[in-house]
Amino acid sequence: MREGRRPDQLRPLALEVDFLEQPHGSVLLSQGKTRVLCTATIQEGVPRWLSGRGRGWITAEYSLLPASTGDRTDREAARGKQSGRTVEIQRLIGRALRSVADFEALGERTLWLDCDVLQADGGTRCAAISGAYVAARRALDRLGLGRTLADSIAAVSVGVVDGAALLDLDYVEDSGAEVDMNVAMTGGARLVEVQATAEQAPFSRELLDDLLELAAAGIEEIAAAQREAVERA
Amino acid sequence: MREGRRPDQLRPLALEVDFLEQPHGSVLLSQGKTRVLCTATIQEGVPRWLSGRGRGWITAEYSLLPASTGDRTDREAARGKQSGRTVEIQRLIGRALRSVADFEALGERTLWLDCDVLQADGGTRCAAISGAYVAARRALDRLGLGRTLADSIAAVSVGVVDGAALLDLDYVEDSGAEVDMNVAMTGGARLVEVQATAEQAPFSRELLDDLLELAAAGIEEIAAAQREAVERA
Amino acid sequence: MREGRRPDQLRPLALEVDFLEQPHGSVLLSQGKTRVLCTATIQEGVPRWLSGRGRGWITAEYSLLPASTGDRTDREAARGKQSGRTVEIQRLIGRALRSVADFEALGERTLWLDCDVLQADGGTRCAAISGAYVAARRALDRLGLGRTLADSIAAVSVGVVDGAALLDLDYVEDSGAEVDMNVAMTGGARLVEVQATAEQAPFSRELLDDLLELAAAGIEEIAAAQREAVERA
Amino acid sequence: MREGRRPDQLRPLALEVDFLEQPHGSVLLSQGKTRVLCTATIQEGVPRWLSGRGRGWITAEYSLLPASTGDRTDREAARGKQSGRTVEIQRLIGRALRSVADFEALGERTLWLDCDVLQADGGTRCAAISGAYVAARRALDRLGLGRTLADSIAAVSVGVVDGAALLDLDYVEDSGAEVDMNVAMTGGARLVEVQATAEQAPFSRELLDDLLELAAAGIEEIAAAQREAVERA
Amino acid sequence: MREGRRPDQLRPLALEVDFLEQPHGSVLLSQGKTRVLCTATIQEGVPRWLSGRGRGWITAEYSLLPASTGDRTDREAARGKQSGRTVEIQRLIGRALRSVADFEALGERTLWLDCDVLQADGGTRCAAISGAYVAARRALDRLGLGRTLADSIAAVSVGVVDGAALLDLDYVEDSGAEVDMNVAMTGGARLVEVQATAEQAPFSRELLDDLLELAAAGIEEIAAAQREAVERA
Amino acid sequence: MREGRRPDQLRPLALEVDFLEQPHGSVLLSQGKTRVLCTATIQEGVPRWLSGRGRGWITAEYSLLPASTGDRTDREAARGKQSGRTVEIQRLIGRALRSVADFEALGERTLWLDCDVLQADGGTRCAAISGAYVAARRALDRLGLGRTLADSIAAVSVGVVDGAALLDLDYVEDSGAEVDMNVAMTGGARLVEVQATAEQAPFSRELLDDLLELAAAGIEEIAAAQREAVERA
Repeated sequence: MREGRRPDQLRPLALEVDFLEQPHGSVLLSQGKTRVLCTATIQEGVPRWLSGRGRGWITAEYSLLPASTGDRTDREAARGKQSGRTVEIQRLIGRALRSVADFEALGERTLWLDCDVLQADGGTRCAAISGAYVAARRALDRLGLGRTLADSIAAVSVGVVDGAALLDLDYVEDSGAEVDMNVAMTGGARLVEVQATAEQAPFSRELLDDLLELAAAGIEEIAAAQREAVERA
Repeated sequence: MREGRRPDQLRPLALEVDFLEQPHGSVLLSQGKTRVLCTATIQEGVPRWLSGRGRGWITAEYSLLPASTGDRTDREAARGKQSGRTVEIQRLIGRALRSVADFEALGERTLWLDCDVLQADGGTRCAAISGAYVAARRALDRLGLGRTLADSIAAVSVGVVDGAALLDLDYVEDSGAEVDMNVAMTGGARLVEVQATAEQAPFSRELLDDLLELAAAGIEEIAAAQREAVERA
Repeated sequence: MREGRRPDQLRPLALEVDFLEQPHGSVLLSQGKTRVLCTATIQEGVPRWLSGRGRGWITAEYSLLPASTGDRTDREAARGKQSGRTVEIQRLIGRALRSVADFEALGERTLWLDCDVLQADGGTRCAAISGAYVAARRALDRLGLGRTLADSIAAVSVGVVDGAALLDLDYVEDSGAEVDMNVAMTGGARLVEVQATAEQAPFSRELLDDLLELAAAGIEEIAAAQREAVERA
Repeated sequence: MREGRRPDQLRPLALEVDFLEQPHGSVLLSQGKTRVLCTATIQEGVPRWLSGRGRGWITAEYSLLPASTGDRTDREAARGKQSGRTVEIQRLIGRALRSVADFEALGERTLWLDCDVLQADGGTRCAAISGAYVAARRALDRLGLGRTLADSIAAVSVGVVDGAALLDLDYVEDSGAEVDMNVAMTGGARLVEVQATAEQAPFSRELLDDLLELAAAGIEEIAAAQREAVERA
Repeated sequence: MREGRRPDQLRPLALEVDFLEQPHGSVLLSQGKTRVLCTATIQEGVPRWLSGRGRGWITAEYSLLPASTGDRTDREAARGKQSGRTVEIQRLIGRALRSVADFEALGERTLWLDCDVLQADGGTRCAAISGAYVAARRALDRLGLGRTLADSIAAVSVGVVDGAALLDLDYVEDSGAEVDMNVAMTGGARLVEVQATAEQAPFSRELLDDLLELAAAGIEEIAAAQREAVERA
Repeated sequence: MREGRRPDQLRPLALEVDFLEQPHGSVLLSQGKTRVLCTATIQEGVPRWLSGRGRGWITAEYSLLPASTGDRTDREAARGKQSGRTVEIQRLIGRALRSVADFEALGERTLWLDCDVLQADGGTRCAAISGAYVAARRALDRLGLGRTLADSIAAVSVGVVDGAALLDLDYVEDSGAEVDMNVAMTGGARLVEVQATAEQAPFSRELLDDLLELAAAGIEEIAAAQREAVERA
C-alpha cells in the first residue's frame, strides 16, 4: 500500500487561487508534497511571426527552484542554459493550453504562463498544466477575455510500479516506474496530450488502455477541483 | 488522394547501410524525400553519474542541416543554442533506443547515435529512430556487442488530416494535421513510446485507438525493411 | 503620508518558517507586498579553491520570478544570462551572511542560500538577507551545526523621497528616491554592509548619518521578528 | 609510396550534383574518403550593413558532423559554441567565393553556402570550397542569376611530408606534415587565397614556389571535374 | 609602516591625459603599480528605453586584462561571460558618473566609459572612477558638451588592516583587510557612493566615521590632480 | 604619396619593453598609430591532451579594446562571444610563435601571449606577432628558459592599393586594398606564415612574388628593432 493511498487515488489536492496580488492570475497548487506556483500574465502584442493577423498566442515557461528537489539542483540561470527536461516540459504545457484556446477571442495578445516548482515530489509537469489552466482562467476573466478558453484542461501522471498500475505517482514511485505516462484531458473528457514511455521494457496495448482509464478518472477529479477553485475565487 | 498513396501506405523507404566507412555504424535512410544520416559510435566509458557499475549508456543527438528544410533554417551551432524542438527530439530518440537495451551486455561503454537530417519532408524524428536502430545494430555487431539490443525498434508518424487518419505524413500533411501522433514499437510489436497531441482540437479515445492500429501496421513494414537491410549488409 | 505609514515605520512583516518540507531550511518572508522564498541547503564539500582546509563556505543565489514584477520580466534561464542586477544582489547576500559565519564550525560543507522573489514591491535584496538568515539558522540547527552563525543578520532599505528620509521603501517610493541606501546589521547592532548611492544628486555627510540611524532602528525590529520566528518554529 | 598515389596525384574525385531535391543547389563531393555535402540557398535580402545598395552578399558555414572524424567529435550545437577551427574555415570559404562574385548581378540577395562534412579524411576545407562553387553555380543558374559568378573556383591542399612535396594530403599525411598549405584558384588559373603554415619548422622561399606549382596542377584537374559535373547536371 | 607610506597617504598618482589619439577622450591613470586605461566615446543615440526624450545616457564597462593580475586571469571574452565582480564594478562606475551628469545638456547621446586595467595592484575600481571622470571631461569638452558634468568625481578605497585605518590600499593590504570600503565624492566634497563591507567581522559606527574622514581627505588630493591634468591637457 | 611614406617604407616603430612590472614579459609596441600591449606569462602545466610528455605549449589571445577602433566596437566579453576575426587572429599568433619554439626546452609549462590592441590603425595582427615575440623573449630569459625560442619572429602586412604594392598598410589603405597579405618570417629570413587574399579580384603569381619581396625587406627592419629592444632591456 502506497502511504495509505489506493492505486486509483489522487494525492491531496489544494488550489490557492490569487496567491499573489500583482500578476493577472496566480495559483499555488499543492498535490501531495509537490507545490507549483503558476502565474498568468497577459501582454499586448504577439511574437513577430504571428503579428498582424488579429490572433493571440499562449506560451509557457517552467522551472524547478534549486532547492525544490531533495538534493539541490543547479540554477539554470546560473548555468546559462535550460536543461533538456525543462525545455521539453514547457513545450508540453504551452501545447496543452493552446489546444483549448480560441486565439481570435484573445486578440493580438500573448498569455504567458509561468510554472515555478517550489517543491518537487513527482508529477510536476502535470501539476503545472492543471495549475496553469486555473491561473490563465483568472487572468482572462479579469481582463474580460474569458471566451479565450473554451474548456478547462487538467493533467495527471499514471504508471506501472512493481507490475501494478498506479494513479498520480510521487517521486519515489516515479523513480521505479516500468512505464511512465502523462495524460492531459479537457473538462469535457477529450484527449489533449498522451505521452507513454517504456522506462524499463516495452509494454502491451492492453496496458496502455488500462492506464488511460486510470488517468481519465483522476483527471475528472482534478477538473472538479479546478471548477470549484475558480468559482470560489 | 495524397500523391497517389493510400491512407495506410508508407512512403518509399530505402536504407543504405554502411553509407560511410569511418563510423562504427552508419545508414542513410530515405523515406520519401526525408533523408536522415544516422551514425553509431561506441566509446569506452560512461557519463560520470553511471561510472563504476559495469553498465553502459546510450545517448542520441539530432539536428536539421540548415538547408534540409524548404527555407534555410539557422544553424544551431552558429546561434549557440539547440532549439527546444531539437532537444525534445533527441531526448525521444535516446529514450526509445534505451528501452530495448541490455546495458550490462554493453559494459561500461557509451553508444552515441547521431541523427543528422540532410533533407526534411516530415516524419524526421520517427525516421531518426528507425535509422538509429540500424546504425546501432551494425556498430554493435561489428564490435561483438550484438547482445546489447534485445529487439529492433522502429517508429512512424500518424495523424488526422481533413478528418482522415493517415499513415506516415509528409511535411504538407503534417502542417495541416488536426492530431499528430508518433509511435515507436519493437520488432515484437510492443509499445515503446506513444505521443499523441491535439494540434487543433481535443480528440476522442476512439480516434486514438484507430491511429494506434494504423501505426502498428506501418511499423511492421519498417521493421521488415530494417531486418532485410541488416542481413544484406 | 505614505499609505498610512510613518516615515520610520516598517511595512507589515511575516515570516512563515518551514514553508517547504524538503529543504534543510526554508522561510517565506512577506514585507508588505514583497514576498521572498528563502531556502537553505547544506551540501558536503566546498569549492575547489577552498578544499582541504577544514573550512566551509556560504554562497547565495537570487532571482526574480518572471511575474514577480508588475510587468513580466524575461526569465534569466531562458535568456541564458543573469542580469547585472541579479549578480550584484546575490554577491551582496552571500557576503552579508559570510560576515557572521564561523567557517570552522561549519566544516567542509557548503551552505547554499536560494532567495527567489515570488512578488517584488521594493526592498527585495534586503528582504532576501533577512530571510536567508532565518532559513540558514533552521538548516544549521537541524543538522547540529548551529554554532556556524555567531549572530543574526538583517537588512533594510532607507532613502530620501521628496526630501524626506524614509524607512523600508516600497517600489513606488524607491523609483523616485533621491538617495538609496541598504544597510545590513547584526542582531548585536554592528554594521555588516553599508551601501549608499546618490540616485539623483550627491548628498551630504549629515544625510548619511540620519539614514544610518533610521536603518538601525528598523533592523532592530526585524531582528526581533527573526528571533521570534526561529523560536516559534 | 602513398597508398599507390604519385606525389602529384589527386585522390579519386566524384561530384554528385543535385544530391538533394529541396535546396536551390546541392552537391555531395567525395575526394578519397572525405565527403562533404555542400548546399546553396538564395534568400531575398542582405545583412543590415549592406542594405539599400542594390548589391548582394555571399556567406558560408562549415561543420564537421560528430561522427565524421575517426573518434567522435563533440557536436558544436550541443557545446553551444563553434570551435576556432570552424570559424576560421567558414571565413575562408566565404572569402574565396566572394572573390569571384559580381554582387550587382546578384542583387539584394544573400547566397548561403552550407558545407557539412559527412566524413573527414583530410582536405575538408579545400573540398568545401570546390563543392561550394558547384552548389552555388547550380543555385544561381536555376534562379537565372548565373552572371553572379564570373569564374569557377577550386582549392586543394599541398604539403611537405618526410621532406617530400605532396598534393592533396589525406588525414594521416596531414597530421605529419612539416609545411601545410591551402591554395584556392579560379578556373582561369589566378590566385584567390594562399595560406602556407610552418607546422614544424620555418621554410624557404623555394619550397613555397614548388608547392604553389603542385597546387596549380591539382586545381586544374578539379576545375575540369567541376565543369563536367555542372554540364552533366 | 607600509612601504614608507603614512596611513593617510595616497600612492604616487599620475594622469597621462590623451594617451591615445583616436578616442574622444583617454587617460592612463597610474596609482602606485595600478594602471588603468580609461577612454570616453560619445555616440549618437541612446538605449531604446530612453529614446525620444531628449536626454542622454552614460554607461561604463570594466575589465582586467588577463596578465594585469599577478597570476594570469582567464580572459572573460574567451570564457564567454563577465565575472560577477566585473559586472558589479562596471555598474558602480556608471552609477557614479551618472550622479553628476546633466542628461539634458548631453542630449540624445551615449557616453561610453571603458576602463581597462592594464596592471592591478589594488584599488582598481576606485582608480577607474577617477580616471573615467578625466576621460569623460576631455571627450565632452572636445565635442562642446562640457556642461554635461556639473562637478568632478573621484574615488578612493579605505580599510582596516591589523586594526589600523589605512588610505588607498594596495593588493597585499586589501587581501588582509578586516573592513573594506570604497567612497566616491564630488570635487565639491559631497558623497556619491559609499560601500562598506565587513570582510572578517561586523564593525562599529565609529569606525565607519573614521574611514569616511580618511577617504574624504584622499579624494580631495585626487580631485586636485584631476583638475591639474585637465587644465594641462 | 601615402602621408609622406615611400611604398616600401615602414611606419615609425617603437618598442617599450617592460612596460608593466608584474607580468613575466611585456612590451608596448607602436607602429604608426597602431598600439598593441603584448604580455607573456609562463604557467606551470600544459593542457590536458599534452600532459605527461615533458613538453610545453604556447597559446595566444588577442583582443581589440572597445575604443581602439575609430567607432567604438562592442566589448566581446559583454557580448559573450569572441568574433570570428578575433578567433582567426589569435590562432595565427599562436601558430607563428609555436613554429620557432623548442617545446622540450620549455618543459611542461604553458606560455600565454596576450595581445591587447589599445589603438588600431591597421596591421594589428602583424604587430601582435612582432610584439608577442619580444614579450615572450623577455619572459623566457627572465625565467632561464631562453633556449625555448630558437629564432626571432616578426610579421608585416603588404598589399595592393590602386594598383601599387605597398608595405605596412594603415587602416585607410587596408580598407581599399585589392590584395591583402600578411607574412611572418624568422630573424633568419625563413617563412613561417604566408596568407594572401584576393579582396576584390583574383591575382597573378607575379604579384604574389612582388609582395613577398616587399614583406621580406620590411620584416628585416622589424627584426633589427626587436633585437635592439631586447638587448637594451
